[in-house]
Amino acid sequence: MAETEPREALTLEDLADVWHVLSPEDRVAGFRLLPRSEAEEFFLSHDARDQAALLRALPPEEQRSWARLLAPDDAADLVQALPPEAREHVLGLLDDQTRREVRALLAYAEDDAGGLMSPRYARLRPDMSVDEAITYLRRQARERLETIYYVYVLDESQRLLGVVSFRDLFAAPPGKVVRDVMHADTVAVRDDMDQEAVGRVFRETGYLALPVLDAEGHLKGIVTLDDIVDVVEEEATEDIQKLGGMEALGAPYLQIGFRRMVGKRAGWLAALFLGEMLTATAMARFEDEIARAVVLALFVPLIISSGGNSGSQATTLVIRAMALGEVRLRDWWRVARREIGAGLALGTTLGSIGFLRIVIWQAVRPVYGPHYLLVASTVFCSLVGVVTFGTLAGSLLPFLLRALKLDPASASAPFVATLVDVTGLVIYFTTASAIMTGTLL
Amino acid sequence: MAETEPREALTLEDLADVWHVLSPEDRVAGFRLLPRSEAEEFFLSHDARDQAALLRALPPEEQRSWARLLAPDDAADLVQALPPEAREHVLGLLDDQTRREVRALLAYAEDDAGGLMSPRYARLRPDMSVDEAITYLRRQARERLETIYYVYVLDESQRLLGVVSFRDLFAAPPGKVVRDVMHADTVAVRDDMDQEAVGRVFRETGYLALPVLDAEGHLKGIVTLDDIVDVVEEEATEDIQKLGGMEALGAPYLQIGFRRMVGKRAGWLAALFLGEMLTATAMARFEDEIARAVVLALFVPLIISSGGNSGSQATTLVIRAMALGEVRLRDWWRVARREIGAGLALGTTLGSIGFLRIVIWQAVRPVYGPHYLLVASTVFCSLVGVVTFGTLAGSLLPFLLRALKLDPASASAPFVATLVDVTGLVIYFTTASAIMTGTLL
Repeated sequence: MAETEPREALTLEDLADVWHVLSPEDRVAGFRLLPRSEAEEFFLSHDARDQAALLRALPPEEQRSWARLLAPDDAADLVQALPPEAREHVLGLLDDQTRREVRALLAYAEDDAGGLMSPRYARLRPDMSVDEAITYLRRQARERLETIYYVYVLDESQRLLGVVSFRDLFAAPPGKVVRDVMHADTVAVRDDMDQEAVGRVFRETGYLALPVLDAEGHLKGIVTLDDIVDVVEEEATEDIQKLGGMEALGAPYLQIGFRRMVGKRAGWLAALFLGEMLTATAMARFEDEIARAVVLALFVPLIISSGGNSGSQATTLVIRAMALGEVRLRDWWRVARREIGAGLALGTTLGSIGFLRIVIWQAVRPVYGPHYLLVASTVFCSLVGVVTFGTLAGSLLPFLLRALKLDPASASAPFVATLVDVTGLVIYFTTASAIMTGTLL
Repeated sequence: MAETEPREALTLEDLADVWHVLSPEDRVAGFRLLPRSEAEEFFLSHDARDQAALLRALPPEEQRSWARLLAPDDAADLVQALPPEAREHVLGLLDDQTRREVRALLAYAEDDAGGLMSPRYARLRPDMSVDEAITYLRRQARERLETIYYVYVLDESQRLLGVVSFRDLFAAPPGKVVRDVMHADTVAVRDDMDQEAVGRVFRETGYLALPVLDAEGHLKGIVTLDDIVDVVEEEATEDIQKLGGMEALGAPYLQIGFRRMVGKRAGWLAALFLGEMLTATAMARFEDEIARAVVLALFVPLIISSGGNSGSQATTLVIRAMALGEVRLRDWWRVARREIGAGLALGTTLGSIGFLRIVIWQAVRPVYGPHYLLVASTVFCSLVGVVTFGTLAGSLLPFLLRALKLDPASASAPFVATLVDVTGLVIYFTTASAIMTGTLL
């Protein structure tokens, strides 16, 4: 419901619509065609990367007013999105207070609570009356605070005593003092807490903002829920891309440069390829068996892809459950028991399908020779073994990686693929030897 | 920073810590040991599924007060999490107004804006003065509204005229009327808009709440940002699980029943298996070639897994970019051009590694016979072809599925795997025939 009069000029919607297909030059040209107020809205709604690109492309005399539109946490993000040599110049565009705040924020890692927080929060003393507090906040509301809806009650040394929602204050009898209406039992996060953990605290508490404390309990800033939506989405994108077998791109697909994108994909692809070379070594060990019973080779892709698929299911489930905090390191045994059961059930299902397929096919067109029942039994037993192994390995590797302090998402997919393919071949050919020696082999 | 005195009783943190390993009975027992105020906090912080399970396990005389703790949108979610036969009973526990509101909400699909919204928003008339408005809101603040921080300005027929943030109102000169300080150019969503699209509007605007309108522009409720964090996470989990080659579980990993979990995995695994059976058919067509040159079989797993891995990278990237709105249907040709380039670059890289590996290995231990250069060339050419094909197929299938109105995430992974494996075998053996006929074949 954006009620706007018809007009000739470029609108915000027009520009947003074509933004992702424009060249950097056309973006700046389009941006400068917008009326100032729409351009501001457009600028503020974009992420730090786009803002940095726009800012750098504008003529020097226009840059200051755009840089100063930003709250300190957003300005810090923009500075971080700049190449190192451009950072001091942009810091120089800010007013003194903001520059100080931005420098303080830049000291934190980008994905810690400290790197997400804004230092501009509304504050009160505990001994103010509710009416004094409301008047005082009415003055603070005109400042550029992140939110006035949560108000933090501090002692003289900036230690957090409690928090009061604006709404509580507003609904309280005017005579009470802030200490009486505030919640002393405040949920807070530490400035060095990882952003994923901060996201979990938001999810558990349902608050719109959380205070960020240093090790001594001093209030350093607040993190607001809108920052967390981006974090949640970003983390999910990273995990999805890592599970897809590559480095996280760290930029939108159509915006990242071709060489960088290929680089982020080639590394893992080459690592996977080197791992998969072990399959050629494994196959070479069974070259005699294949030469004697070529029929065995026919089912190699089927067997190893089934192991890979079941391993990938298990890995995906466990990694996502870990990311959501549903599964912890100490749950490994519960997960293992579950997955052994699941692997046996799934392996038996696939094995039965495979067995039936060979038997039925043979009845229609006898391609598997007189010993087709041995072939079918080999396929059945191998599938049970391979799928169970794939499922178990896929579910336990994330635990192992986490225990070794590695990121489960980025390493599991390739490890599982290689491990399961190589082991799958060994299981298959060993089963074949056991079943077929004396007949086909 | 949860400052609590030491005490003997079970605390909220204790219970939360062990919650996910408790049986349903132990959960209820533990829950009933909490002091009432902690139990309420605990109840409210859980999702609808847990709330429904707890509520049903409590004795009938205690259920009413728990059901009435919930705001109408949360109550509607809880009712939806109940088995159909239990719904009327729980609706009967609510007060009349809430029950009416919940029934209205239940008419919407769970994943539409209408299914997410709360009907309890703060409202004003346009001709009130700012001071009157603040006094009026102070009264509304004591009611159970979702938020008082965005206030919606309605005409007599409940049509939305504009929105004013509480903060604007608070900072405005007292003599002005609401119409002067409100924003008429309001961003709103339709009640039948999909929740993913609602998430994107939140991301683009950065607001804490959005009004939900019906087709005639009447305000039906509001969606708040905290609902969207859950939605974003849920959608990411679904996409991750689908990309992992299974149906989305729809419940936390350790909580879903074993049979349901295996069912959600067995379906896709069996579909993938049936598709992969085509590889056995494809291999059978080349049985003579394998019999003549067993060395060819050794590289089958390596070749097809490289095609699968590169296809999986491309599919994952495109599907995530689609989910984030970075890539749209009409971008297919830009993506295809990019991915052909990426595929050629990646294929050449892997092919070169493969070629070198065979040549170096042969120098160390001559296992590939006198024609090892032909084998190495076959592997090189096949990898360029297979990886390029895998990359292109992986990137374009999501577009095809989306154009056919199917969910790209749930179908691409299996299709790509099967397509690329079968085509990979054909490419490999055809290349081998072309290069080796007259020598090895």
